[in-house]
Amino acid sequence: MTAAEPGPDAGLLAPVCAGTPVEAAVDDRAWLQAMLDAEAALARAQSTLGTVPPGAASAITEAARAELFDVRALALAARETANPVVPLVRELTRLVALSDPAAAEYVHRGSTSQDVFDTGAMLVSARVARLLLADLRRTADALYALAAAHRDTPMAGRTLALHAVPTTFGLKAAGWRDLVLDAADRVAGVLAGGLPVSLGGAAGTLAGYLEYAAIAASGGTPAGLDRGAYLDALNGAFAAETGLARQRTPWHSLRTPVADLAAALAFTTGALGKIAVDVQSMVRTEVDEVAEPAVAGRGRSSAMPHKRNPVLATLIRSAALQVPSLAAGLTQCMLAEDERSAGVWHAEWPLLRACLRLAGGAAHTAVELAEGLVVRPERMRGNLRVTGSQMASERVAAALASGLGRGRAQELLAEASATARHTGRPLAEVLAALPGVAACLDPRELSVLLDPLGYTGAAGPLVDRALERPARPA
Amino acid sequence: MTAAEPGPDAGLLAPVCAGTPVEAAVDDRAWLQAMLDAEAALARAQSTLGTVPPGAASAITEAARAELFDVRALALAARETANPVVPLVRELTRLVALSDPAAAEYVHRGSTSQDVFDTGAMLVSARVARLLLADLRRTADALYALAAAHRDTPMAGRTLALHAVPTTFGLKAAGWRDLVLDAADRVAGVLAGGLPVSLGGAAGTLAGYLEYAAIAASGGTPAGLDRGAYLDALNGAFAAETGLARQRTPWHSLRTPVADLAAALAFTTGALGKIAVDVQSMVRTEVDEVAEPAVAGRGRSSAMPHKRNPVLATLIRSAALQVPSLAAGLTQCMLAEDERSAGVWHAEWPLLRACLRLAGGAAHTAVELAEGLVVRPERMRGNLRVTGSQMASERVAAALASGLGRGRAQELLAEASATARHTGRPLAEVLAALPGVAACLDPRELSVLLDPLGYTGAAGPLVDRALERPARPA
Amino acid sequence: MTAAEPGPDAGLLAPVCAGTPVEAAVDDRAWLQAMLDAEAALARAQSTLGTVPPGAASAITEAARAELFDVRALALAARETANPVVPLVRELTRLVALSDPAAAEYVHRGSTSQDVFDTGAMLVSARVARLLLADLRRTADALYALAAAHRDTPMAGRTLALHAVPTTFGLKAAGWRDLVLDAADRVAGVLAGGLPVSLGGAAGTLAGYLEYAAIAASGGTPAGLDRGAYLDALNGAFAAETGLARQRTPWHSLRTPVADLAAALAFTTGALGKIAVDVQSMVRTEVDEVAEPAVAGRGRSSAMPHKRNPVLATLIRSAALQVPSLAAGLTQCMLAEDERSAGVWHAEWPLLRACLRLAGGAAHTAVELAEGLVVRPERMRGNLRVTGSQMASERVAAALASGLGRGRAQELLAEASATARHTGRPLAEVLAALPGVAACLDPRELSVLLDPLGYTGAAGPLVDRALERPARPA
Amino acid sequence: MTAAEPGPDAGLLAPVCAGTPVEAAVDDRAWLQAMLDAEAALARAQSTLGTVPPGAASAITEAARAELFDVRALALAARETANPVVPLVRELTRLVALSDPAAAEYVHRGSTSQDVFDTGAMLVSARVARLLLADLRRTADALYALAAAHRDTPMAGRTLALHAVPTTFGLKAAGWRDLVLDAADRVAGVLAGGLPVSLGGAAGTLAGYLEYAAIAASGGTPAGLDRGAYLDALNGAFAAETGLARQRTPWHSLRTPVADLAAALAFTTGALGKIAVDVQSMVRTEVDEVAEPAVAGRGRSSAMPHKRNPVLATLIRSAALQVPSLAAGLTQCMLAEDERSAGVWHAEWPLLRACLRLAGGAAHTAVELAEGLVVRPERMRGNLRVTGSQMASERVAAALASGLGRGRAQELLAEASATARHTGRPLAEVLAALPGVAACLDPRELSVLLDPLGYTGAAGPLVDRALERPARPA
Repeated sequence: MTAAEPGPDAGLLAPVCAGTPVEAAVDDRAWLQAMLDAEAALARAQSTLGTVPPGAASAITEAARAELFDVRALALAARETANPVVPLVRELTRLVALSDPAAAEYVHRGSTSQDVFDTGAMLVSARVARLLLADLRRTADALYALAAAHRDTPMAGRTLALHAVPTTFGLKAAGWRDLVLDAADRVAGVLAGGLPVSLGGAAGTLAGYLEYAAIAASGGTPAGLDRGAYLDALNGAFAAETGLARQRTPWHSLRTPVADLAAALAFTTGALGKIAVDVQSMVRTEVDEVAEPAVAGRGRSSAMPHKRNPVLATLIRSAALQVPSLAAGLTQCMLAEDERSAGVWHAEWPLLRACLRLAGGAAHTAVELAEGLVVRPERMRGNLRVTGSQMASERVAAALASGLGRGRAQELLAEASATARHTGRPLAEVLAALPGVAACLDPRELSVLLDPLGYTGAAGPLVDRALERPARPA
Repeated sequence: MTAAEPGPDAGLLAPVCAGTPVEAAVDDRAWLQAMLDAEAALARAQSTLGTVPPGAASAITEAARAELFDVRALALAARETANPVVPLVRELTRLVALSDPAAAEYVHRGSTSQDVFDTGAMLVSARVARLLLADLRRTADALYALAAAHRDTPMAGRTLALHAVPTTFGLKAAGWRDLVLDAADRVAGVLAGGLPVSLGGAAGTLAGYLEYAAIAASGGTPAGLDRGAYLDALNGAFAAETGLARQRTPWHSLRTPVADLAAALAFTTGALGKIAVDVQSMVRTEVDEVAEPAVAGRGRSSAMPHKRNPVLATLIRSAALQVPSLAAGLTQCMLAEDERSAGVWHAEWPLLRACLRLAGGAAHTAVELAEGLVVRPERMRGNLRVTGSQMASERVAAALASGLGRGRAQELLAEASATARHTGRPLAEVLAALPGVAACLDPRELSVLLDPLGYTGAAGPLVDRALERPARPA
Repeated sequence: MTAAEPGPDAGLLAPVCAGTPVEAAVDDRAWLQAMLDAEAALARAQSTLGTVPPGAASAITEAARAELFDVRALALAARETANPVVPLVRELTRLVALSDPAAAEYVHRGSTSQDVFDTGAMLVSARVARLLLADLRRTADALYALAAAHRDTPMAGRTLALHAVPTTFGLKAAGWRDLVLDAADRVAGVLAGGLPVSLGGAAGTLAGYLEYAAIAASGGTPAGLDRGAYLDALNGAFAAETGLARQRTPWHSLRTPVADLAAALAFTTGALGKIAVDVQSMVRTEVDEVAEPAVAGRGRSSAMPHKRNPVLATLIRSAALQVPSLAAGLTQCMLAEDERSAGVWHAEWPLLRACLRLAGGAAHTAVELAEGLVVRPERMRGNLRVTGSQMASERVAAALASGLGRGRAQELLAEASATARHTGRPLAEVLAALPGVAACLDPRELSVLLDPLGYTGAAGPLVDRALERPARPA
Repeated sequence: MTAAEPGPDAGLLAPVCAGTPVEAAVDDRAWLQAMLDAEAALARAQSTLGTVPPGAASAITEAARAELFDVRALALAARETANPVVPLVRELTRLVALSDPAAAEYVHRGSTSQDVFDTGAMLVSARVARLLLADLRRTADALYALAAAHRDTPMAGRTLALHAVPTTFGLKAAGWRDLVLDAADRVAGVLAGGLPVSLGGAAGTLAGYLEYAAIAASGGTPAGLDRGAYLDALNGAFAAETGLARQRTPWHSLRTPVADLAAALAFTTGALGKIAVDVQSMVRTEVDEVAEPAVAGRGRSSAMPHKRNPVLATLIRSAALQVPSLAAGLTQCMLAEDERSAGVWHAEWPLLRACLRLAGGAAHTAVELAEGLVVRPERMRGNLRVTGSQMASERVAAALASGLGRGRAQELLAEASATARHTGRPLAEVLAALPGVAACLDPRELSVLLDPLGYTGAAGPLVDRALERPARPA
């Protein structure tokens, strides 16, 4: 290869992640360490079953530290075998042999690349899932506070880009929280269901593991081994050593754990992205109902000193726009042929990492957004006045309907609304002047009915009920 | 509009669905009926709360039959309002008025288009989910039988397109079943978690519902109404009348139910698609280990009388290739701005229907494939002989490793494998002639170790454990 | 099959298409007719080469009318062979035989299902592409008029949701037009590059065609046929009879035409979707700078008489959100294995139709939007005043920079902007009071520089240049 | 930020790219350099127009070297403004000021972040496009040689996973070449159409550029500037200095260049992925018709010494499975609201880089695959014998059809095929024994017709025509 060595990925193109904890949790070094953790855990698991000497397991564990490896050399060597585990095993064996040549025999014993890679990937994913959960719950807590504080803060409800009827900012924030808790539930579900170890050997039968176990047990013949019992024991011991769940059936080409992660991560960025687009809608210059937290330097434009850009929402949305496509790529990878696929498995790796990274970055950014969001109730009231009593016309229609019939009531309202808009006269005045109306409602009633601040429906009780939902399931 | 009227969608481009039950469950008529069911259930729910007269609810229910509506006229009118519920309500009101003018006042009372559309969509989705569950479980049952019958049928395990080590067909079938049960669990989870009714009114505050309820309750002023209690009661009554779950927070732009469906449907076609690509791998002329069920006329080529195409796997795969992209489109739609989005919600409709239809067609097709799959154990054994004892070389390497060290053992095997391939001599013979080998293993031992039929690892116990998984969670 | 027969797809879930010309251009009937057109053209092409009797070609052409076929029966039969052409050929043969038994021998002569299906798909696609071109050009013409009329209509330029510096509505409209013409160029490019016939026979060698030609030519032996010459002649004749382009290499599994269509269609909806999201941004209640064309009944809300929803933009955006995912599915289908794929080809069909339909509907809808868009220059000016002279602060910074240095100038501006915002005093006044400023600019100069209406940069000349671009390339 | 610093992206998860030239062409350092190149070119362009002093342009160019910058610091600072250009400008200004304080005033003069970022992105993209073109053409050349060498090498044509009729390996390779040239055309088209500079200023009006130009020209008032002429001159000069094309209309939110790149890159990996899946189909153990180039260590399995995995095809396929989804994400980003979007633009960055990187890696890998592919004509003939004369049954059917009618001929063949398969007798013998056949064809004729090696149709002439296509358009 004559190509120049690539430089680091410093996060220049992914400000949503740069500097957030997920970055270091999923980088090449972390992935390498996770695979080494898998190798070491496998040796220890075999050791607890008596098929690897304890000293060998210790020596392997000792050598399985990422800082002893040249990750770039592994990456380059991975081209020769289409995966990085082959060179990793070679190098780990060499390192173990330096201190304990006999122990080197026990590296990767009976195993196959995919067992190690997939177990490593699950370790990385579990770590990110825990980061996600923490950030989603902090976000939910901040949204709880917003919803509680603004339970009765009226604002324009907007549908199809237009004022519809009033709502409250509390209900909006409570809805955001609900969605964030839904995301947390899905991430927690993946963790609880258990991201599993991978233990299949060359083609999913664990034959290599058994063979070595039999040799260890009997001095050469596998006949005496209770295969089922050993299988269960190894599965359990590997799970215990890694902290992951037991696998069900070997899953080299049965990709449930990856598909579940894809779904949970896409849901997570979708939930956070919903908040981001709502913030952007409210932050618009003419609307100006919320602002992002004021932090020195944040949101400054290079050319326009007066602007304070909604940077956090922008970053979150940028992640939310990417993850569904990436996750679809992962789901497509369920179509993995045979016992192990030629390319489909390999396509998963960067997609999974990108989903983890973007979800992690978005969740961390969302904490900052939710905790610092500046809410402007007076602007919300001001905007309500733009449409004014028009927003409560549904209500007057209801009141008139009992007297006039709904069809006639709606016609009257539509007519009066149009008149009010064109003439600039208050809707109450226009309505009061219509003969049909005066018979049903006196001006005072009309004025009460048309006050948008009074027409927030069940927003309050809806907030109450939403906030009863615990942030952490019992 | 001067365009010619479109003809029916007879399923010409979607043979995976044509004639399967899902087709009629999701067509325009079914969707229309589901929306009418929602309108009728809403009236009855309001009636149980005393805010709509029982007679009106009956009259509305009576008129809410799809066959009374011109679905094409509704579709054309939907262009005027960007959704079909506005003309549906107009027409339903007209129909009710024909028989009971007073009842017409109560059609769609306090409601909004999205409540009706989304409730209808959940009704359709729940019906399809139940079809799916039935077909996935039938498929799993057929795979159970295959796995049990072929628990010990050896075949080549294939990785990266090549023979790796032996496995059994039973383990492959048990893995397929596991994946199908995973899909069933996810579909069942969506059903159990509860596809909810939608109840938000114009902007998610239920204001319209409350207003009419208050008028009904008090003769004009909403003051006396306990909004929270009414909200809960209406939610419960609507759920009871539709058979759906209660909603949590109004979800016009909090799209958890749709995102969950998208994930479960993409998982389902992914699981079935995995089976399809495996069948295609095994059905290849040179491999010929399985065949699709022989049905008169099925799989005939228009030009080649000797072919019997793997039609069912082809159809399933065609669905599995589409759904992840469609589902990603749905997940992207979580980014719905404001109280109701201008376009994002609307984008969901055809995507959701296509996902439901393709998943339903694929599941129905998979039943036929799994129940009729022809398995050829003799061909599996024959193909094992192509690589022969090479496939068990991992095993000999393990046996030699205790004597020679693993590195040396692997070198010897690689060398011997190459010699055997190039000379055509049996690997056992080549190995036996190597000095290092003879010292460790005698020819008889070698021959036992190199028999691929004896090297299926834990395949048998893995099948046993997989088949212990119940088809229906307790 | 015991399933209920599905009803028609009346367009209930796709109002963006309902009633637009593309609907009938891509429905099952149109697709069937296109495949029949391919069969008839193939017979006529062979007839011009002397290998099919002219009378037979006429009889086949005569019978190849969709109305003679039961499209539902074909769809159901398609399940047996995974494609609808096998039963279509059977039925066409039967129909021809009714009138001319000898001619029936010449139906589908030497051909294969995919030749007929793909040629039909190209015929459908070409027809839709022409519809698209016409609608895109009408849209571009309407945008030309808007851009020309509003060349100098100032409005707020918005970046990251906030007012940035002024622009003009003319420049916005000219940019939209540019994008629409880019889309038209891409669609025209696909048409000009030539959507090709498909002519491969059973596995892409045209063997069947040649065999029959040889028999026709020599009475039984193919030896005398110049295969290359016949190949070229048949390719040319089939192209001439269909109006499509010649194929290059048989493309059963070389899917350039489909990938090109996918790209052009996704570009088209992307271009139109950009217009839609801009319209939605400007139509927001607080912004209110444009409105959709007022048409009786259009945009009415079921609950809120005062609203006029931006229905057209909503519909267009709903299409634009779907097509990229669908098109990705099509592009993924380039990975078609072997001479013809088992499932990948089949996955293309509904995806291609959905892309064609949505693009066609969106383009037709865009005509209406562009031709009827109501522009409110006074609202644009009004909104400019919200930020007022802040928007031109970049300009004052430039003017001050020559005297004070850029860094100091930007600091002064930032400081003054903040003061103006907090105190409500005019920025000009605040600035004039700053010692550093007065030395550089007198109050009159400041006031000129800070007038946002005067700070539209090169918007005018940019419009002029953009409008020089011809709507139809020379 | 308390997070650990992330390590480098060494390519561990993307072996398709590791060590290939594209890696260094798109890494953070390259992207940073490209943005600095844009800043420098902008200063020089303004200098050629007399609005920036030549010395300042030189000083800026001198300082615009990536190695002087801390890319990680920029990435972290990018979080504060949602893009890395703001801190880049700050740091560049500081560096220039160190050597030439007056010149520092001219850094980024009149510009905006997106102009610099997008111009940089186009520079990176153009460089990758040129790498791609070179690799695609080398691949095409290698495929030319394969197609020419194997013009008449017969092999089984496979459709729906089964032998259909014979084809030649030459035709398969010629088809691959056609597709690769199609990809090269599309990449070349993007380059020729011209990846443009970006020149819009704060909101697409170039106001800042003009303002500074006016000040430079007239000593303070912009009145005298011919805005259109200056706009054209700056556009041209910027294009000349960068080597990119002039822009048409400012394209901050008119994303034609990015959508075009997305389409070309997805097409490229689709074309290469088609080759990969075909290689995988032919490399299968039972088929064994081609092998990947034998390179020491390549394709070694960690557990199975006898395997040589199809590593290159695996890597290419892994890229081809990812890019369509990523590209769809990019196309979706055409829906960028307003003059510059809050998040949609930002979502493009990692997606574009991933598409460039994967396409570049796949193309580089494809060169190696195509140049080294080992073809086994004897295995191809051997596999043809598996189906034997069955594959030419279409041909006998044609020959019999003239005597017996096509329907009867096809029935006879189907019957004889079935008998031959079940009894193991040669098809020729079975056919010859059928009364209807003997009357039409004597045994010698039958035997000629049934020889699959003689039934390759127009494969030869098709190869000839395909190879006439020049690798580089005239």
